[in-house]
Formats: sequence, C-alpha cells, structure tokens
Amino acid sequence: MTSPFVAACRGQAVEQTPVWFMRQAGRSLPEYRAVRAEHGMLDIVRTPELAAEVTLQPVRRLGVDAAILFSDIVVPLVGVGIDLELAAGTGPVIAEPFRTVADVRRLRPLEPEADIPYVLETVRLLVKELDVPLIGFAGGPFTLASYLIEGGPSKTYARTKALMHTDPAMWSGLVDALVDIAVASLRAQVEAGAAAVQVFDSWVGQLSPPDYKRFVLPASRRLFESLADLGVPRIHFGVGTGELLPLLRNAGADVVGVDFRVPLDMARARLGPATAVQGNLDPSRCLAPWESVADGVRDVLARNGGRPGHIFNLGWGVLPETNPDVLRRIVDLVHAG
Amino acid sequence: MTSPFVAACRGQAVEQTPVWFMRQAGRSLPEYRAVRAEHGMLDIVRTPELAAEVTLQPVRRLGVDAAILFSDIVVPLVGVGIDLELAAGTGPVIAEPFRTVADVRRLRPLEPEADIPYVLETVRLLVKELDVPLIGFAGGPFTLASYLIEGGPSKTYARTKALMHTDPAMWSGLVDALVDIAVASLRAQVEAGAAAVQVFDSWVGQLSPPDYKRFVLPASRRLFESLADLGVPRIHFGVGTGELLPLLRNAGADVVGVDFRVPLDMARARLGPATAVQGNLDPSRCLAPWESVADGVRDVLARNGGRPGHIFNLGWGVLPETNPDVLRRIVDLVHAG
Repeated sequence: MTSPFVAACRGQAVEQTPVWFMRQAGRSLPEYRAVRAEHGMLDIVRTPELAAEVTLQPVRRLGVDAAILFSDIVVPLVGVGIDLELAAGTGPVIAEPFRTVADVRRLRPLEPEADIPYVLETVRLLVKELDVPLIGFAGGPFTLASYLIEGGPSKTYARTKALMHTDPAMWSGLVDALVDIAVASLRAQVEAGAAAVQVFDSWVGQLSPPDYKRFVLPASRRLFESLADLGVPRIHFGVGTGELLPLLRNAGADVVGVDFRVPLDMARARLGPATAVQGNLDPSRCLAPWESVADGVRDVLARNGGRPGHIFNLGWGVLPETNPDVLRRIVDLVHAG
Repeated sequence: MTSPFVAACRGQAVEQTPVWFMRQAGRSLPEYRAVRAEHGMLDIVRTPELAAEVTLQPVRRLGVDAAILFSDIVVPLVGVGIDLELAAGTGPVIAEPFRTVADVRRLRPLEPEADIPYVLETVRLLVKELDVPLIGFAGGPFTLASYLIEGGPSKTYARTKALMHTDPAMWSGLVDALVDIAVASLRAQVEAGAAAVQVFDSWVGQLSPPDYKRFVLPASRRLFESLADLGVPRIHFGVGTGELLPLLRNAGADVVGVDFRVPLDMARARLGPATAVQGNLDPSRCLAPWESVADGVRDVLARNGGRPGHIFNLGWGVLPETNPDVLRRIVDLVHAG
C-alpha cells in the first residue's frame, strides 16, 4: 500500500496530510545531543548503526510520516576525496577551494558502493526498521559549487557568482560534475531502499531568476531527469526561492519545497496545479507560545485549502532551540486537519 | 531647479536616469580605507570633517547623482545611550540585549541637537560642499529591534520573531519607540539640509507577509506619515523583500528599493504605477568582466522600460572587493541610457 507521504508527493488525495520536518534529526532532540556528545558529525555518518539510530529518533518521538537519512550534502564530496571539515554552526570549510578549471578534475565520478558504503548500509539498516518511507537526499549543484568555490561561510556568494560570469565553461563543468555525483548517490540510495529523494539546493535563492535560468536550471533539469526512471518522488528545495518557483517547477521535480516567506497559496499560483508542494511554517514560529504555533499551522493548511499534493513541513530546518514537544503537537494538529 | 535624482523619486521624467550606490562610501574606495586605517567607524561618524570627507569621496570619484550621509543606522541608538559596538563584518553587538518590557524604557526619546549633534553638523558641512542632493537615512523598526533583541549577528532572527509572537505588547512598544527615534533623526537631518531620506529596514525580508503586516507595517506606515509634511522624497529598502513589495508600497514611501533577486519589471507589477523604484543590479555582478556587468546594467534598464520614476542602484550594498572603476563605468553607462 502506498504511504500517505508518497501518495501526497504524487498529488493523490490522502486522509491525513503527511508531515515531516527538515532537520528533524538533530540538535533539537536531547537523545541526538547525547550521541553528538560522544561522536563527531562525520563519525556518525560513517557508522551505520549510529546514523540509523539518529535517523530513527525523531520518527519514534514525533510520529512523523517520513524519515530522512541522517547525513550531510557534502558527504559524497568527502567520498570522492575532497578535503573538508564540518565546522559547527558555520557549514563546511574546504581545505583547497576551487579556483580554476583544473580544480573541476578533482571531482572524479562517485562510485557509491566504494566511496560511501556506510551511507548505503545505513539505508539498508533503516528500511528494515522503519514503517514509514525513508527520504534519501543530495545537495543541489549551486549549493555544492558555492561551498567548493567560497571555501567557507559566505553571506553574499560573490565569489561564486563572479566565477559564473567570468568563466562560464568552468562553471558548467563544475555543476555537471556535481550533478553526476548527486545522481550516482541518489540512485544508489534508492536502490538500497530509499522511497523518495530530496535535492537541497539550499542557497540557490541567492540568484536572480535570469542567473538561475542560465547557470543552474539546465544542470538541475538533467539531475531530475536522470532520476525519473526510478519511479520515486523527487523533491526540490531551496531557501528564499520565491522568485524562482516557476523555474524550479521547470527543473522537473514532483514536489517543490516552499520557503517560509512565500504564503502557500501564492506558491501554488506560481507553481501551477501539477506540482505538489511541501512546507512551510516559519521555523522560528515553533518558539512562540502554543496557540500562536497552532495559528501558524492552521494558516498553512488553510492556504493549501485542501488541495491534494501537500506535505506539511517547516519552511526551512528545525532550529536547535525548538522544544520537541511542540513538534509532536504540530504533527498531531496537522493529522487532525 | 529640481535635481534629476529628486525628480525621479517623484516619478517625473528626467533626461538621464539618476544613479547612486548603497554603501558607495566605504571599503571599495582606497581613499576610504586610508581614513579607516587611522580612525574607527564611530570616530569618523562623530567627527563631522571626517564624515563629510568620506561622504564626498564617492561623489568626486564616481560621478553619482546623490550623496548619502556617512553614518550607521545604530548611531541614534548610541545617541540615546545604548551601549553597543560595531564589530567589523558582523554588525552591531549590544552589551545588554533587550529581553523584557522594562528594556523598552531604555529607549528614551531622541533629541537630535543634543544626542547626535555631529550628524547634523556633518549634514550642514555637506550641503555647503555638494552640488548633488544629500540623502539622510535611518534604520527601520524591524531591523533595529532585531539588533537590540538578538544582541549580535543572527542568521534566523528567531529570538526576534519568537518575541513578537510571545509578547506582542512589548514588541509594539519597542517598534513604536524606534519609529519615534527614526522620525526625530530624519526630521533633524532634513532640517539641516538633507534633500531625501532612506529608511533601511534591511532584514525585514526575513518575515513572512502575514507577520510583516501584523508586526511591522503599522509602525512603518506611521514612520513615513510622520515625514510627509517635510516634502522630501522618502525611500524604503530591505533585502529579500520580493514577497513584501505590495506591503512596502502600503507603508507609504515614495520610492521602494528593490532587492537584486526580483526582476525590476516584476517589482513594478507588484508595486503599481504610483511608486517609484530604486535598483537593482546584483552587487556580485560588479565583480564580473565588464561586458557581463554592462549586460546586467542594460537588463535592469530594459526591465524598467523607460518608465519615469527609476533611480538606478545596486540591489544591495557595494561589496568591499568591488573595483571603483567599474562603478564609474556603470554610472556612465546608465547616464548614456
């Protein structure tokens, strides 16, 4: 039987709106912090028993309709030999940032069973344990390229954007290599048992629509096309993408994740009826008193207006200071409808 | 005779599109860095001769159609006794962040001639020197409130948003006090000779439209109404405000500054014909080769389509790594039309 989550991704009517939370596995849960006190982030990812445990924690506690693999979008880059560190709170720091076309050759093709066997083993462990679908994921081409080019945290992505316009051939080679890696990783995750995939092109909302259309859309379209034959729902998400929604639809995902800044009815209008939507309560709202949280949840549901093809989520990741009891109550409220 | 800048702000037809750059006075200019090597940021603001010199530098070098007072949006807060530091690259750090309604009382009314006499003296020096209009400015209520509440840099503004929903009475008192300070500061700048004012509610794009409408719009509307009798153009700008444009129009400014993510023709459609627009080349584009920069400039002009009421600008501040020669060439290209 098709799960409510997968059915909603396919735009089918479901009895209860399915719900999960980006970063549901993570620092908002005390049981996660207990694991992290003993193990580094990448150590957990590389130890299937730990990664599986951390993936299961929010499913047990929150009653969500989907699990999402505990990993990081840079893990396949580590798999092909890119030297990087995950600095707490600031994102990845690349030992040797990408500067020239020669750097693109450092991105050799990903061989998932050899390069990230622990990820696939985690997926296999999880599908035995879970009674909800498991979402696999990968980073989108702009976001991973920006990490490799900026080398560390950036507010403006100025170096990345300058490179696009200065050396479009290098840019194109870079995003193509990143798409190949994402496709290999996602195909392997699905073959190991993942029931859906999400592409996090988290920072792509930093681009104007013309720049997105020229420099990212062709690569993203190839990414989603290369997964079409797998028959699993494909979700596409980035932060601050209000202006990009029609282009994200054209990239070909089945579901577009909507940032919290765009009211869901407006997002629906920009995406058209064929695209399912995921979102989009402001994560900060979870820190408000319960009645205000509940108002926010009801507003999201009302703006969807009962249309099929809605997966409830936050409009970006769970904040570390969130009380998990609030997340649990959100799940119950969404299910009650 | 009305200057082209002021005429364009009023929606009048002009011979050449006027242009200036947010953060045109600053780290992209070697002559500014030379001053900064000897003086702290707030020292420059408090020394009218230095502040005037730094304001004039880009007017001399770039040929822009307006000057903008060299200052910072937190200066009036310093004037009423808030203890803060301007940390390089991260924004203000508040010694004692605002937590309760008692903190709001720390914002006593601003008496410009007593609290920020150096700002008004700088304006008076400048209007004697300048042959283009001087823009005065103030911080918008959300942005200043977020600084006071977060206490330091934030990516999510979670504490600020939580406070809005948790203690709406405190929030309302806080933004009202900040509006009073902004109005006092801006009125004094205009009385000293400023020919236009810009309100930087820089981070307000972090809010969803319903939150903006409830928690910020009434205060911003009062701010702009309280300046209407001065008869100078009022400009309103925030980053990432694509979804908020119709609400920013309702706040009542004469000109809305448009973030680089929203194509200017789409911004015009959301704002309606009565509102002039300012913007909106991506600041990162200035780091690309000149032909690409020129394409970007021409795209902005084409999207405006010759409609009156356009002031060319970037869609956010000049990046420190920008070559000032590129800015000069942009000015010439915009003037050539």
